[in-house]
Formats: sequence, C-alpha cells, structure tokens
Amino acid sequence: MSLTQAESGAMARARELGESVLGTTSPNPAVGAVVLDAGGAVVGEGATSPPGGPHAEVHALARAGDRARGGTAVVTLEPCAHTGRTGPCADALIAAGVARVVVAVPEPTRLAVGGAERLRAAGVDVEVGVEQQAAEEGALAAWLTGVRDQRPYVVWKVGATLDGRVAAADGTSRWITGPTARAAVHALRATCDAVVVGSGTALADDPQLTVRDADGRDAARQPLRVVHDRRGRLPAGARVLDGAAPTHVSRAAGPAELLAELFDRDVRRVLLEGGPTLAAAFLRAGLVDEAVVHLAPMLLGAGPALVGDLGISTIGAALSLQVRDVTLLGGDVQIRLRPTRHTGDRPHADERG
Amino acid sequence: MSLTQAESGAMARARELGESVLGTTSPNPAVGAVVLDAGGAVVGEGATSPPGGPHAEVHALARAGDRARGGTAVVTLEPCAHTGRTGPCADALIAAGVARVVVAVPEPTRLAVGGAERLRAAGVDVEVGVEQQAAEEGALAAWLTGVRDQRPYVVWKVGATLDGRVAAADGTSRWITGPTARAAVHALRATCDAVVVGSGTALADDPQLTVRDADGRDAARQPLRVVHDRRGRLPAGARVLDGAAPTHVSRAAGPAELLAELFDRDVRRVLLEGGPTLAAAFLRAGLVDEAVVHLAPMLLGAGPALVGDLGISTIGAALSLQVRDVTLLGGDVQIRLRPTRHTGDRPHADERG
Repeated sequence: MSLTQAESGAMARARELGESVLGTTSPNPAVGAVVLDAGGAVVGEGATSPPGGPHAEVHALARAGDRARGGTAVVTLEPCAHTGRTGPCADALIAAGVARVVVAVPEPTRLAVGGAERLRAAGVDVEVGVEQQAAEEGALAAWLTGVRDQRPYVVWKVGATLDGRVAAADGTSRWITGPTARAAVHALRATCDAVVVGSGTALADDPQLTVRDADGRDAARQPLRVVHDRRGRLPAGARVLDGAAPTHVSRAAGPAELLAELFDRDVRRVLLEGGPTLAAAFLRAGLVDEAVVHLAPMLLGAGPALVGDLGISTIGAALSLQVRDVTLLGGDVQIRLRPTRHTGDRPHADERG
Repeated sequence: MSLTQAESGAMARARELGESVLGTTSPNPAVGAVVLDAGGAVVGEGATSPPGGPHAEVHALARAGDRARGGTAVVTLEPCAHTGRTGPCADALIAAGVARVVVAVPEPTRLAVGGAERLRAAGVDVEVGVEQQAAEEGALAAWLTGVRDQRPYVVWKVGATLDGRVAAADGTSRWITGPTARAAVHALRATCDAVVVGSGTALADDPQLTVRDADGRDAARQPLRVVHDRRGRLPAGARVLDGAAPTHVSRAAGPAELLAELFDRDVRRVLLEGGPTLAAAFLRAGLVDEAVVHLAPMLLGAGPALVGDLGISTIGAALSLQVRDVTLLGGDVQIRLRPTRHTGDRPHADERG
C-alpha cells in the first residue's frame, strides 16, 4: 500500500471527524470522510449524520462539489453499496468522478458490503485496510462490537480516591473529583447512546444522569438513562425519572441481558457509571471494553472500593488491563485502559520486546 | 534580579547536579555548583561529596582552574563561611577570583551563614534567592526539612492495583507492578538514607530492602534498612538481617519517635515502604512529605487497601494531596504527590486561578 502524505493526513482527519459525531449516529457507524482534489488539497470533509441523514462521504462530496472530480476520497469505513434510508455511497463517489478511494476498515456486514467492488468496476482505484487498526480502535469500535458480538460496546467510568474509594465510610462522595474531571464525564456521556447505573447508585446518589454543559444546562441531545433495577427498588421520585431525558428501567437478570435490551433499542455505546457491584458484574462477565478511571489526589483509608467482589483470591488471577493513556484533568488523574482479554501474564511494554 | 541566559541554564544544571548525589551527602545538603568563565561558558561543575569530602563549589572550581577568574559561580545553596571538616567555600571562591556568585537558597543555619556577606566584603557581586523555590523543592528539600523540623524528610512509596489493593485476598503480592516500576523503586531507594518498613511487611513479604542494579546485584552504597518492630516480632532469620547492608530495628512508640532515632543517625531522607498500617500512622501524624504511588493496571476486587484507617469518616475530611507529575513506567502508572497540608477545600488547578 502506498499512501501520499496528503492522504495520510486526510485519514487522521477522517478519524477525528468520525469521533466528533460519536454518540449521535447509532445504530449507524460514526464514519469520517475527507475529499482531496487532484492536487491533494482538502476540498471537503464530512461525518455521518444522525440516522436517516446523509453518510459521511455524501457530506464531504457536497462540500467538494466539482473539485472532487479526479480527486481522492479518504474514508474510515468502506463506502456502502446498498440503499437504506440513503442511497449507496459508492454510487455517489462514482457520480462525483473521484479517481481514487482510500479506506481504513472493510465493510463487515453482508447488508452493505460490495462498495469497493462496485467502485473498482467503475474504474476507481481503491485501497482498503489503510491504518485500519487506528480506525477500528477509534470511533468505529462501538459499531464494530455491535456487528461482531451483537451487543453494545461498554465504557466503564469510575471516579475514586487514590486509595480506590468511591465514597467515604459515611457514604458521602460529593465531590471526590474536581470540576474539570466532572466536565469530562459529561463530555464522555455525550459520546454514548446510553448511561447505565444500578439501583444502588440511583438510591444512594440519586443522580440525574443527563449531559450538562459548562453552565449546567442540559444538552440538546441526551443519551438514554438506564437503571438496572432487578428488584424494583427505584422510587418514583428518583431524578432519573424527571423527564429531562428518556429513561429505561430494566429488570434484566444480569449484564448480558441488560446489554441485549439496549442493543434492541439501537444502543451501540454504553457508559457504565454505576457503583462497585454493577461494575464487578460487568467485569466478571467480560463485558467491559474500555475503562476510564478518574483518580482524585486524596486518601480516605475507608469506604466502598471502586470495584466489588470479582471472585479473585490470588495475585496470579488478577483481572489485567492495559493503559492506553494517562492525562491530568485539573487536579485529578485520568487513566484510560482496556482489558487485555488474555489470562495469565500481564503484558508490560518492556517485557514484550 | 537579572540573570543572563547562561546563568539561568547553569542554575538548572546545578539543581540536576545536586539531585545526582541525593542519598550520598547526609547529614550535609546535596548541593550543585556550576562555574562559568567571564564569557559565560561552562568551565566547571560539581556536587557535594559524601561527608568529609569537598563541597560542590570546591569541585567546580577545581575543574575550572584559572578559567574561573573573572567568572561566575552558580550554586543551589549559599556558600558556607565556616570551617568544618572542609574549609569555607566563600574563601575558596574569593581565592579563585570569581567576580560574581549566583545563589538559589540562602544558608538557613547559624553555623554556616555569612558566606554572601564575606563574598561581598571581598568585592564579589552576589545574588541570593535566584529560582529559590525550585531548588528548595529539589535536592535540598530533605536537608531543609531537617534544618527546619529536626526530622528526616519522608517519601512514602506504595505499589498497588488500580483498585488500591497492595495484595490479593490470600496475601500474595508478587508481582503487582512490572519490572520498570520495580527498577524505579531501587533507584528511589538509592536517593534515600534509610528505607523503613513495619514488622508486618517484614513478616509478610520478608523483603531484603537493598538497592539492586539492573542485573540484581547490590549497589555499593546501601541505605540504612529500618524495621519498625515495636512488639519485637522480627525473626532472627529475616532477610533484612542478612548483613548485606546496615539494619536498624526500632522499638520506637510511633512515627515521630522513629524519625527522631533516624535523625540522630544522620538520616535526612527516608523512604517509607512498609504496609498500610505504617503508612496510615505516618499520614495521620502529618509525617509524609511526598508520595510516590505506582499503580498497576489490574483489578483484584479484594485484598488489603494501600492505606489503613486514617480516622476519616466523611468526604470533607479526606486527606488531600496535590499531583506533582504522572508518568508511565512500563505498563504501570507512577503518580507523585505532595500532601497539601491545608484542611478544608482541596486546591484544583482550575479553581485556584
């Protein structure tokens, strides 16, 4: 595969464009597209609209207009070849006269596959699999999990003290993390289709679970609020039932059943925010795809731990993750991780090679 | 105060030189010195030798030779004016013919004070208080704590899982952190005059507590190994008693008494490595100056927490620290912190300004 510098830059930008619409496209993938003219200059950018609206390529082509002719379209996902609520993107690219299409991730569904073939049949030069892993781990991760496992992708978010406490001994927990970390949680919620807590958290903290902006106002688009309330303990006056956003109260028997319910509601990316018990249930079931841990620089020495019983009694059986990145959020530390999914030895960068 | 660019660079280098001998100079301060010639070029560098050896300025002047004449000496601590095991550094600077001396931290002891005055009396231009805070928080911090509080400076080091466990439910803890983090602990030990554990850790883990290099060999200089063993539980066969390094078994009643014993032994910088109970005792006594937390990306869901009971029952009473820096050590995360020493509101960067 040979990529020009302009194409490589366009692919990085296409990934960003996909990420910018994360949380607004489900059940469709959050795709990004950039159109370069024949000279390699960016002439159009686009990202997937909410369901029923145009796909990323169509937006980018519309902005490029005639300048797309003889140019290159760079997209994070193979253009579709089927007519759903919108027409096939492959046809739109052919009609616009692009000479080349650079694709990160091949279309994995039988429904939409065939775009690359259709483009090639029309004489367009097509490269597939370009910087594929970065795109798969980025904005497409949630949708790909849905295609592969028929369940939503789960981001577990937890805020705790340095000694791993999510509350003090008397149950108080406001505020462990500072305003910058709390704002980051609202931004994270906005990238998800649903926010899940257990009835324990709903009872203890009575959170509203909406996405609020810096001024405390509710954002226009709100993820589905979900309370896992197997025993029907949620009181009618709970704030999650305040009508500020849609709410689903689930009696599901466990994490897998809960995720199945949400998948049927077109949820593809879930933020798991609720308590040590619910987090432990998801972790034990292997249903956490990503962890976002906010650690506040404080010590309590007592109080509930950030994760409940995992059924682990010895160090060799520890649940292993891998650090993706570490950042400072105001006075707090954010660590983003992924479960490694292997058992046994934990991979350390310096042990790998 | 006006500093040339060469002088500012020399001061940063002088701080580094001081840090490079941390752990080898006590009870003397770890000072760094750089000599610039009349044109501003570096012609000599030095750091404090072990007790009885030359001070930093003397080393730097020896390397500079005649090129010091008309030049500038840049030092982290005011040159001494007294004759101890070595002669007064102020006199050495005058004899070498330096025209200017730039000092970060003024000499705080009555014994050695007067260097700046003596230099000025000899016609040398002297500036004191240059980038003072950076020097005070660097290699001089431990020695300054000793001068001010008559006790050693305490660095608390702890390695734990992401959920704050220092061992699994069955007591196993090898290894929570990876080889890079463990090597960093050995490097940290080497910067300290003593390494302290409680008898609980000595009994549970039987650590050797020596400084080992990358090949597992004991380093030439070893910090004092200290076991706080109030109840005389340490068995004669414990590895800390193996003769590989000096060991002090203390029956002190608590952290303050233990530190007093160590101060009398010329210890100025202590690494507190031992268990949740000892850490909690030091934290409750306000006797932790710095914390180095190594977090491994794993979850246990059970097991002893990284700090024991702090007598804190509500979130408003949490013990607050401030993050100094966060780094990745192989697959693990290192967070360095300082207790904020205020009660009440925790300072967040974004709330302060």
